[in-house]
Amino acid sequence: MNNLKAFEEIIGYKFNNRDLLKTALTHSSYANENRGKNVLFNERLEFLGDSVLSLIVSNYLFENYRDLPEGDLTKVRATIVCERSLWACATNIEMGNYLILGKGEELTGGRTRASILADAYEALIAAIYLDGGIDVVREWLLGQIYETILDAVKGKTVTDYKTALQEKVQIGGAVDIHYEVVGESGPDHRKSFLVNVLINGKLMGQGEGKSKKNAEQMAAQAAFAKLGDNCGQ
Amino acid sequence: MNNLKAFEEIIGYKFNNRDLLKTALTHSSYANENRGKNVLFNERLEFLGDSVLSLIVSNYLFENYRDLPEGDLTKVRATIVCERSLWACATNIEMGNYLILGKGEELTGGRTRASILADAYEALIAAIYLDGGIDVVREWLLGQIYETILDAVKGKTVTDYKTALQEKVQIGGAVDIHYEVVGESGPDHRKSFLVNVLINGKLMGQGEGKSKKNAEQMAAQAAFAKLGDNCGQ
Repeated sequence: MNNLKAFEEIIGYKFNNRDLLKTALTHSSYANENRGKNVLFNERLEFLGDSVLSLIVSNYLFENYRDLPEGDLTKVRATIVCERSLWACATNIEMGNYLILGKGEELTGGRTRASILADAYEALIAAIYLDGGIDVVREWLLGQIYETILDAVKGKTVTDYKTALQEKVQIGGAVDIHYEVVGESGPDHRKSFLVNVLINGKLMGQGEGKSKKNAEQMAAQAAFAKLGDNCGQ
Repeated sequence: MNNLKAFEEIIGYKFNNRDLLKTALTHSSYANENRGKNVLFNERLEFLGDSVLSLIVSNYLFENYRDLPEGDLTKVRATIVCERSLWACATNIEMGNYLILGKGEELTGGRTRASILADAYEALIAAIYLDGGIDVVREWLLGQIYETILDAVKGKTVTDYKTALQEKVQIGGAVDIHYEVVGESGPDHRKSFLVNVLINGKLMGQGEGKSKKNAEQMAAQAAFAKLGDNCGQ
């Protein structure tokens, strides 16, 4: 109970029905280890929270970026409504410390696992929605993810994958990114270039283009995909 | 304008801002053919409507099917929030007759195209949401798709694919569905059967199972997929 209160302080929202918060924080592994006690866990809330999040983000983008066409809106939304992004949100509010996990999950690092944290964050969104309604959860959520939305919109308007790749991989310190032309074909007026991108000497992507520059951009984009970026990049 | 009024009669909703309805009914092809006139079309509304629909369906399932686990909820939602299902909803309200299309699209049968109708239906959901708010669109939409939801829930709890396949293909009249064992392997205690399903003599699916009955079910399931059912079946 003290834990729930402490977590409410962090997230800046006080529940009318604190059972909802408890369910949002409870992982299925805990319920599985306590069968017969009828413990509620967060999977059904996660199902609902996913849609609440999607609507709030869609509505915000729709109202605030009137010049963005549907394709860009969809890409931006995908960048926000995805595991990596939700995991970051959950980490910001130290959610891992408050999860109610089974012993097995606890021992294998469940408290810091991205998928568990992202799912719990969606469940938390649903819990606040059920507790306070759509307007309350909208205000709370936009306060939480405002920067994420700005970054996502900015990211989607960046078409320079080389720069984006550099920014991405160098978060953890200096990294050597090297592009090399490994193939060239076609007549002079219809040349095609094949470029590899190596990160710290390891092949991370290959791209083809009508110029070396284009091929490098394509290779950088391929590296993005290889780096497990499933967030609509 | 008369057209918009007539459509309002059919859908049972009167817009405060009829421009929203007009935009929801306007396909990009019409806007493209009238560049310079700054015609609004329905793609951005479709983006928003997708999320509104998803939240309303998720919320309804969450509240009314408390025994369904997250996996089943997700499958049922996917059955409802998909082109085939939305196309049927759009057809129910004769939406094709009221679409504002470009000439090219008109000539190539755009008025009855499933993707155009499904997208327009999502745009209509967004238009009512923006016009009347979440509670108004929820009441309207649930009135429209109540049967679809019931069918989806029922469909997800049906595990008899043979019956389901029969119901599906015979909507358009009597159809011959024939299962035949085309392979048998393994020792007596670990037999494996291979079964083809033919619809009007055409191979539509193949299934493998430990009994003929199982293999038939698998074949029927494969036929479902082949029939272009991308709605979570």
